[in-house]
Amino acid sequence: MKALVYNGPRDVQVKEMPDAKIEKATDVLVRITTTNICGSDLHMYEGRTDMEAGRILGHENLGEVIEIGKAVDKVRVGDMVCLPFNIGCGFCANCEKGLSGYCLTCNPGNAGAAYGFAGMGPYSGGQAELLRVPYGDYNCLVLPDDAREKENDYVMLSDIFPTGFHATELARVQAGDSVVIYGAGPVGLMAATSAMLRGASQVFVVDTHKDRLKLAEKIGAIAIDDTEGGGVEQVLHLTGGQGADCGCECVGYQCCNMHGKEVPNLTMNNLVKTVKATGNIGVVGVFVPEDPNAQDELEKVGKLAFDFGNFWFKGQRIATGQANVKAYNRSLGKLIHAGRAKPSMIISHELKLEQAPEAYENFDKRAKGWTKVILKPGK
Amino acid sequence: MKALVYNGPRDVQVKEMPDAKIEKATDVLVRITTTNICGSDLHMYEGRTDMEAGRILGHENLGEVIEIGKAVDKVRVGDMVCLPFNIGCGFCANCEKGLSGYCLTCNPGNAGAAYGFAGMGPYSGGQAELLRVPYGDYNCLVLPDDAREKENDYVMLSDIFPTGFHATELARVQAGDSVVIYGAGPVGLMAATSAMLRGASQVFVVDTHKDRLKLAEKIGAIAIDDTEGGGVEQVLHLTGGQGADCGCECVGYQCCNMHGKEVPNLTMNNLVKTVKATGNIGVVGVFVPEDPNAQDELEKVGKLAFDFGNFWFKGQRIATGQANVKAYNRSLGKLIHAGRAKPSMIISHELKLEQAPEAYENFDKRAKGWTKVILKPGK
Amino acid sequence: MKALVYNGPRDVQVKEMPDAKIEKATDVLVRITTTNICGSDLHMYEGRTDMEAGRILGHENLGEVIEIGKAVDKVRVGDMVCLPFNIGCGFCANCEKGLSGYCLTCNPGNAGAAYGFAGMGPYSGGQAELLRVPYGDYNCLVLPDDAREKENDYVMLSDIFPTGFHATELARVQAGDSVVIYGAGPVGLMAATSAMLRGASQVFVVDTHKDRLKLAEKIGAIAIDDTEGGGVEQVLHLTGGQGADCGCECVGYQCCNMHGKEVPNLTMNNLVKTVKATGNIGVVGVFVPEDPNAQDELEKVGKLAFDFGNFWFKGQRIATGQANVKAYNRSLGKLIHAGRAKPSMIISHELKLEQAPEAYENFDKRAKGWTKVILKPGK
Amino acid sequence: MKALVYNGPRDVQVKEMPDAKIEKATDVLVRITTTNICGSDLHMYEGRTDMEAGRILGHENLGEVIEIGKAVDKVRVGDMVCLPFNIGCGFCANCEKGLSGYCLTCNPGNAGAAYGFAGMGPYSGGQAELLRVPYGDYNCLVLPDDAREKENDYVMLSDIFPTGFHATELARVQAGDSVVIYGAGPVGLMAATSAMLRGASQVFVVDTHKDRLKLAEKIGAIAIDDTEGGGVEQVLHLTGGQGADCGCECVGYQCCNMHGKEVPNLTMNNLVKTVKATGNIGVVGVFVPEDPNAQDELEKVGKLAFDFGNFWFKGQRIATGQANVKAYNRSLGKLIHAGRAKPSMIISHELKLEQAPEAYENFDKRAKGWTKVILKPGK
Repeated sequence: MKALVYNGPRDVQVKEMPDAKIEKATDVLVRITTTNICGSDLHMYEGRTDMEAGRILGHENLGEVIEIGKAVDKVRVGDMVCLPFNIGCGFCANCEKGLSGYCLTCNPGNAGAAYGFAGMGPYSGGQAELLRVPYGDYNCLVLPDDAREKENDYVMLSDIFPTGFHATELARVQAGDSVVIYGAGPVGLMAATSAMLRGASQVFVVDTHKDRLKLAEKIGAIAIDDTEGGGVEQVLHLTGGQGADCGCECVGYQCCNMHGKEVPNLTMNNLVKTVKATGNIGVVGVFVPEDPNAQDELEKVGKLAFDFGNFWFKGQRIATGQANVKAYNRSLGKLIHAGRAKPSMIISHELKLEQAPEAYENFDKRAKGWTKVILKPGK
Repeated sequence: MKALVYNGPRDVQVKEMPDAKIEKATDVLVRITTTNICGSDLHMYEGRTDMEAGRILGHENLGEVIEIGKAVDKVRVGDMVCLPFNIGCGFCANCEKGLSGYCLTCNPGNAGAAYGFAGMGPYSGGQAELLRVPYGDYNCLVLPDDAREKENDYVMLSDIFPTGFHATELARVQAGDSVVIYGAGPVGLMAATSAMLRGASQVFVVDTHKDRLKLAEKIGAIAIDDTEGGGVEQVLHLTGGQGADCGCECVGYQCCNMHGKEVPNLTMNNLVKTVKATGNIGVVGVFVPEDPNAQDELEKVGKLAFDFGNFWFKGQRIATGQANVKAYNRSLGKLIHAGRAKPSMIISHELKLEQAPEAYENFDKRAKGWTKVILKPGK
Repeated sequence: MKALVYNGPRDVQVKEMPDAKIEKATDVLVRITTTNICGSDLHMYEGRTDMEAGRILGHENLGEVIEIGKAVDKVRVGDMVCLPFNIGCGFCANCEKGLSGYCLTCNPGNAGAAYGFAGMGPYSGGQAELLRVPYGDYNCLVLPDDAREKENDYVMLSDIFPTGFHATELARVQAGDSVVIYGAGPVGLMAATSAMLRGASQVFVVDTHKDRLKLAEKIGAIAIDDTEGGGVEQVLHLTGGQGADCGCECVGYQCCNMHGKEVPNLTMNNLVKTVKATGNIGVVGVFVPEDPNAQDELEKVGKLAFDFGNFWFKGQRIATGQANVKAYNRSLGKLIHAGRAKPSMIISHELKLEQAPEAYENFDKRAKGWTKVILKPGK
Repeated sequence: MKALVYNGPRDVQVKEMPDAKIEKATDVLVRITTTNICGSDLHMYEGRTDMEAGRILGHENLGEVIEIGKAVDKVRVGDMVCLPFNIGCGFCANCEKGLSGYCLTCNPGNAGAAYGFAGMGPYSGGQAELLRVPYGDYNCLVLPDDAREKENDYVMLSDIFPTGFHATELARVQAGDSVVIYGAGPVGLMAATSAMLRGASQVFVVDTHKDRLKLAEKIGAIAIDDTEGGGVEQVLHLTGGQGADCGCECVGYQCCNMHGKEVPNLTMNNLVKTVKATGNIGVVGVFVPEDPNAQDELEKVGKLAFDFGNFWFKGQRIATGQANVKAYNRSLGKLIHAGRAKPSMIISHELKLEQAPEAYENFDKRAKGWTKVILKPGK
């Protein structure tokens, strides 16, 4: 099969690889029809992780079931399925509570597994023609009749729509709340979409990329252009000086200030400032336990100079971590099915699998207009 | 001052009454500019309660503060305020938990007080030119700048918008859920509005009045016309046989079957049928502990022949009771302010206070097109 | 293997049956070492259900794993395991949310499956030497080192300890709350234990059996002897007239009044009276959708003459249904392991499997002192 | 009246001050019978805050009502009352949600007010013979009959018992959970008591003071002596390498390492290590927005070098801030009344008001055995 392989920093290649296949009785084999490039793929692409050369990337996957293992009961050959980026077993102490992003079985010694991801187990990614899905009954979301027609919407259930929604869940967004979101990338835009769906009264999206801020406005959010700084003051002004009820971090440790320099604590400390006393902050942007090549000394050991004093004094709360996709994908899928959500609106490029290397290059440069790339293996 | 007075069953009159005035240091005096007639006013109007003759009705009130007691700290003369129908003290064991609808202070020996309502304490209603508001700092929601412009929206914060929202809160509606609502009256329509605001994927509104069902569709809901029966089957069909995730009862004990006969257990038993196993049902329609004039023998003593076996077998939950308006009015007010909610859309008639008697008559008859009446004292 | 077989109303027999065995790759085979008789076994024993003759009873099971299917990853041969009475798949829409008592896979067309139970699927019970456990990784709780030593405690994790705890969870018992529990049978006693563990300030247990009330007192609860009636008044008196904060129903549809007559609505209407306004009621006692042989006309069709008016007026909430055992068994097992809970204290009889018929007979008669029977197959 | 006055760093004095008196119609005047010294009083005593000289300290107060303002409705002269350390209005956006620790009215421009506390408004403390209580109906907890007999228990409802409980609430402790608590001071011990009350299976208390660790063991906790370091490893070992389910920070920014040096980020980073992935951490130890005299450069500006990378990777949550005492004091008072909680067990010294200066001196030195001091004005 053809697949996108990681050779080393900023070097990926589409080449022929051994076919994925059923390895256990609970496996499902999927022919991938849509697979996305995610912002977190760039961490690996840029060599900021310990990803091994030769592995297949891609954790936002959708396709058709072409074979099932003997112990598979729910999923049927021919089903169109969307696959959560995190792989769970369904029966460990975390999965049984719905914490499928922190499975204790699939990546022994760690909490959490994923397809084609550094440190998340040996699983191959889905930027390929075929994908093996472990514990298929647990990990496949079987899609309804309109699966092929709305494929570009449903594929967003693999990661960014649930991840954006997770940010609003961690931030406990309720009807009537004001919400400030740092980051207008795909996840930030999905968080804005989710906040609107939950009935937020005001949704502020802070970023420096004007094309992305325009998409935020299209969603119904209030764009806060932080290019010249002053974003914090704008949000405080628009919330009567109190700050927003809820905050979402959708950027992560590679956040940059207005001069393009990485300032890892920038968004978190701005959130402490722009969220009200007693407010909740949800953090889905990725922060890492160590980053040896970082410029910032604290960042090298995974630490932030965090405004803990203000945070405590304001009685705020932070909830973090990757989304347990299965906690949301079924519900969000119903909103796509009912026509109330259309996450494909953020797609900027729909390309062949073969075009993946150029897509990585442009996405990594944050080239203007490259918001979200989806790939179509087999086309 | 002029006020609408209850003389006896189906006999109300606008006449001159002693001016409301400040009686305690914590009181606020309000000149009423908008006051609504509520479906629950009809229980008193029809003589189904022990309401005393001579009392002023009206518990959905909005107006301008014209005087404050000496111990009032927050509210200022000139403020436009909307008043929750339930009156709380702010410091009893229930109010301190936010259960302002079950105040233990304002109606001693009972849990809960209200303006102009049978069994809810001695407080005069606001279908009048003036209203005394006890514990003014606690009971007044001070409105923002656009209070006069959006007065017909904000007045709905006194009761039906929070009550409709409460139904969805009791039913635990979450983004992606399907919701079945019994009743397309003002409260049912507000429940449908609330369910949409919370991101429901499907909202079914069941009723037999075609004009009201049209309003439901305008909100984005799916109208289920139960005139010929079959409503239960329709909802089951549209939810793949499982039933809706959540249910809302917005009718109450006077619900009628398709032949116009009161069948008090009709909506509750239909909800058990049309809500899925493990689903939640919120009940804001009024049920009463006794109803001596009822035809139904069980209803006389406040009982229903309730499908408890099915209810238990399906592992469902019921949450009931009047809305704690203060739990929601601030948040919902922000949605009105931001233009995301426009509850005035259900108003069918805007009349002078003097026209109240004819309004009561028509509303009581469920005359076609009389959905919601608001009165403008002083105009 | 030897097993207890249901022949018909009040006729059970221990006889030789075909050995249970691995049928699917996800199965686990358990040699049962302890299995209990449950109050709900009596519904079948008495012929109040449509249980087929020839089936093996028993849904409270614990034993040693002697064989595993090829797709089993967590459970190992030699593990001591306790089995939730409800059987789940782990991957359906309900199981993935932790609602393992309402599995949509294991008993197609219904929500919920169990071992040896009428209407809960074709699964054999565990009052036998061997038991087949479907979806073994999901349905086996692997026990710690002290499993054999505390076997009589751990076996209670299969049903009554989680079910009693579920009652307090449905009733939302929090530290400092007062709790009224109807029923001092095994489940009611486990509810009392659970309420104490959650920090209740007062736990009232209402029953008419003096031996059971004594056990309640041993747990730290306040026994309310309702033999002469007056239980409602006692609870109201002891809660300052307000009623308890929370209520638990642990009796079910076969509850009897003080004259020994079945009065199906007795406990529910007493709970409405003895729980405070805004209080929560958890119902784990079994109520059934139909009961053709009942004396009460409403009960025949599964209905109760329920005090809905008072219930609504007090703004109470009812949550119902069988416990999702997996939601609690792991946590409650830790309390047994730490020595903070000792549910075996309710056991009155420890017998051989062969003695099961006499145990059923005595337990069914509510013979004095027969609180809880456990059976030891193979001994 | 006599009162303890702050003159400057490490200089307090009992002297004659003008009598506290009713100033507003909603005030209540209390003759203090018990008032405690709190660890947070030491922040002021040591000159680490901007406390003005001449002010009366003391925020843990209990006494008898001797006069009420004209608008007071609930509280009566003669009532024994315990006063939450935080002062709320009862009607602002925060108080109405139960966030009485973040009142927006009582300390304008800030969220939160308290008696005798730097930066928490102009209110005098209660280490005095008399205390003025603003918004008396809201801020007085009226005690039951046994108030005088259990005065030393009930006084703990003013702060440390609710604060310790708040730590467990923020950490979401549930029955069966394991909990690690940093700090065996009065608040840490109350957190341990609360965790036991909530049904924790294992409670670890980490500290270096052996006398305090002994009290922890008396409560039923497992003492972790960190004098020689290794506390983290011990907790990990005792939780099977996973870490505890929940964590509580009960030390604050002045935490010291085993060499007695202040290391402000020590406890928080240890909590990230000793709490499991997906676990919750509650922080009630005080952290401050700035601390100009600190040795640590980051601490001067209120920042911590926080292990955000590990925190995020583990998907943990932190909730912070002072306790909303009113959210808990009523419930915890019921546990004292019922004899299920006895917080006075931590008292080491019961002194006259006049002995306060020596008590401050010894408590500040962490002199051996000075765990908790209570003062008895008028004795």
